[in-house]
Formats: sequence, C-alpha cells, structure tokens
Amino acid sequence: MKKNLQEVRALLFDVFGTVVDWRSSVIREGERLGRARRLAVDWAAFADGWRAGYPQAMNLVRSGALPWQSIDRLHRRILDELLARFGIAEAFDEREREAFNRIWHRLAPWPDAVAGLKRLKRKFVIGTLSNGNVALLVDMAKHAKLPWDVVFSAELFRHYKPDPEAYLGAVELLGLRPWEVMMVAAHKSDLNAAKRCGLKTAFVQRPLELGAKDRKDVKPEARFELNVRDFGQLAERLSA
Amino acid sequence: MKKNLQEVRALLFDVFGTVVDWRSSVIREGERLGRARRLAVDWAAFADGWRAGYPQAMNLVRSGALPWQSIDRLHRRILDELLARFGIAEAFDEREREAFNRIWHRLAPWPDAVAGLKRLKRKFVIGTLSNGNVALLVDMAKHAKLPWDVVFSAELFRHYKPDPEAYLGAVELLGLRPWEVMMVAAHKSDLNAAKRCGLKTAFVQRPLELGAKDRKDVKPEARFELNVRDFGQLAERLSA
Repeated sequence: MKKNLQEVRALLFDVFGTVVDWRSSVIREGERLGRARRLAVDWAAFADGWRAGYPQAMNLVRSGALPWQSIDRLHRRILDELLARFGIAEAFDEREREAFNRIWHRLAPWPDAVAGLKRLKRKFVIGTLSNGNVALLVDMAKHAKLPWDVVFSAELFRHYKPDPEAYLGAVELLGLRPWEVMMVAAHKSDLNAAKRCGLKTAFVQRPLELGAKDRKDVKPEARFELNVRDFGQLAERLSA
Repeated sequence: MKKNLQEVRALLFDVFGTVVDWRSSVIREGERLGRARRLAVDWAAFADGWRAGYPQAMNLVRSGALPWQSIDRLHRRILDELLARFGIAEAFDEREREAFNRIWHRLAPWPDAVAGLKRLKRKFVIGTLSNGNVALLVDMAKHAKLPWDVVFSAELFRHYKPDPEAYLGAVELLGLRPWEVMMVAAHKSDLNAAKRCGLKTAFVQRPLELGAKDRKDVKPEARFELNVRDFGQLAERLSA
C-alpha cells in the first residue's frame, strides 16, 4: 500500500453510478411499466433523459434559480417533463408518478459493490456522500443491503456536490481531517472537487454506467491516489 | 399489535442509557486507568459526576450561554472539572485526557441491544437520535456492532434534545410524517418531548442505568404507546 494511504480512516462513496447501476434499474422499471400499460417507449433513452436532466436541475438549485429541494423533488420535476416529451403523460396519474419516481430508491448495486463494501467496512468507516436525499439513500441501502456506517447527503449541508460545503461538511461530521478521508467515485468531476478540498481520491471505472455503446471516460489519472476497476480491487489496494 | 402501531415505519433510538450501558463502561475504564496510575478514586462516583454534568452543559448551549459545541467538547469540559474535583488533575496530560474522553465512543451495549436491533431492522428503518455527535455515534456503532440504517445526531440540527428541532429534523430527513416514527428511550423526558412533536413513543425500562442502588423511575406510563423491558420485548410488541 502506498505510504500516504495509511492515513485514510474513512471512505466516502458517490452513489449513483459508483455503487448502483441506475441505468439498468430505471430501464427495467420502465419496461415493466410499459408492458403493463402497452406503451411503445425507448426506455434506455428515457433513463438517459432522466439522468441528463439531473445535473441541470441541480445547477438551478446551486445557482439560486430554484430554492433548495431534495433530489426526490428534482427527479419528479424531470419525470414530469420527460413523460410529456415522450408523449405518455396521460398514462401516469399523480400516484403513479410518485411511485415511478421512487425507482431511484430501489436501484440495484453493481455486482461487486456489496462484497467490496463489507470488506472495506472491516477496516474503514464507510459512508455515502451523495446528492441523493437521506430518505432515498436509506431506502436504497435497505433494498440493496449496502452496509453503510453512516449516510451523508448533500441534503444535510444544503449544498449539492461539487460545492466544497458537501465534502468539508462530511469530513467535519466524521471528526477527521480532509487527508484522512478518501472520496470514491466513478466521475472525475466529483473527485476533482474532493481533491480541491484536500480529500484523497479513488476513481472507479464503471465503464458500463452509461450503457455499452457510450464511450465513458475511464482513463486512469495520476492525480487520483487510486484508479480501480471495482470495489474488490479498491479493497485490495487499501489492504482491507 | 395495537392498531395505530401499524403505521410505524421507522424507530429512532436514544443511545446513552437506552442502547448502551454508559455507567459500567465508564467505571471499567476509570478502574483500568486508576490501576495503571495507582489512583484511589471512587470511579462509580466519577462516572455519575461525568454524566450529571452533561445535561447542565447542554443547557448552557441550549440557553445560548455557550456557543454550539459537540458532546465530545462538552464531555471534555466536564472531565477537566471532574479531574480537578477528584484531586487527580496532575495524573492526566492533554493527550491522556483526550484518550479518556473517547471512552464515550466505546460504550458497551446492553446485552439485548444488538440482537433486538437486528430483529427490528428487518421490519423498520432503525436510527439513532442522540445528543452524541456523529463521529461518536459512528465509532460506537462500529465498536459495539450496532446495525443502524442511519445515524441522526443533535449535531445535524444544532439543537440538543429535548428541543423539537431535533425530533422534527430527523422525521423530515426520513421523508416520513411524525406519527410514522417511534422514539425509543429509557428516559421519560425524551419521550415526552417526542410525543409533543407527534411521534409515537416506546419506554424501555433499563432499571440498572444509574446503578443497582439508584431508584430510577421505571414505572410504565399509559401515555406511551409501548412500555417494555428490553429490545427483545420491543421487537415482540412490534411483531418484528
């Protein structure tokens, strides 16, 4: 193990895309609902649209154009727009929209995630640091059996990542110093922001996050302390 | 199961005294340190003094006489006073005081606690709602193997219990309504405050919390939805 990794005491995980496979989960749920309602929809495009709307919606909050609101509310806002755009707005009433929106509480983990987290938990404090709201993250953990020691959300700090308040807020609640905490994410922008706050960083590739056809940037970067394929390899590199 | 208990979705637990036996744990640590340093101290009186200083110190924060600070800081403030009062201030330097203060991160659970929580976790979201700070609660959970779904602390709301902001803040983060949440505590004042916020309440007796000689008030009260002996009986009453 690299020498400076020995000071790491806690690992904070991005969740959507890093721990759970949001895309396949949303597609499966769409296909299920589509079959029941006999809707001809490209659910992969629908899932991609839902996710694409998410940074835009968060930026409206981060810029102050929208008041603070949870990811549940932002997901619902995007869902309403998407149902209209795909011409299926009439197929979902209020109750059904709320139920569909909850798919984000039931996303499936990547195949290595639970085993890797269990291994890492023996040696480190493991927690989320997600833009997902607390209720969403708690529901997801119960559904997917994610063994978090602690659930941190942007909601606690009223600042979405990549605002520094989110990273530094979690570090402070852990009672640690930034260099004792490692941010784990499948997205370089998240890690770059964590690094600017003084945290250590681990990049997890997750090449299929955006689908088999997408050319996601999974190139290792020397500026991150670790570049790994999955959580098993992360545990190995951290001697956990 | 009583009918209105069927709406309960999440259980929030007071921690010191309800989940963990702070008194025996502090006495044992004191005795260990006392033997090593050959100190003649009544460690039971020391433990009781440490705990007795805690509501007073919190009230200084709640009233605004002290700025917001974590229980770690308040515990340390009381420890410094106690070491002087017991005439052993010279026996502990700065580093040793910090180490002794961390005993509150390593308290032992009551014998029924872990098994009861595991059983309750299968049916409910289980979380802390403690005046202990997040880092303390996370360390304690790892040490005692407490299987929390979520760790809520007064620190997140910058309001100590029994301020309503603590109870209502946790309910809001869970995305639930107050009557869907049950506060579990061994202290009636905590439950009374939760009840005023609309939460359901379960009183756990813990007759030995203050030692075998103390006559702690453990009388069941009809105003609490449940009055139980331990977490096993709590799980039974909640059909978990």
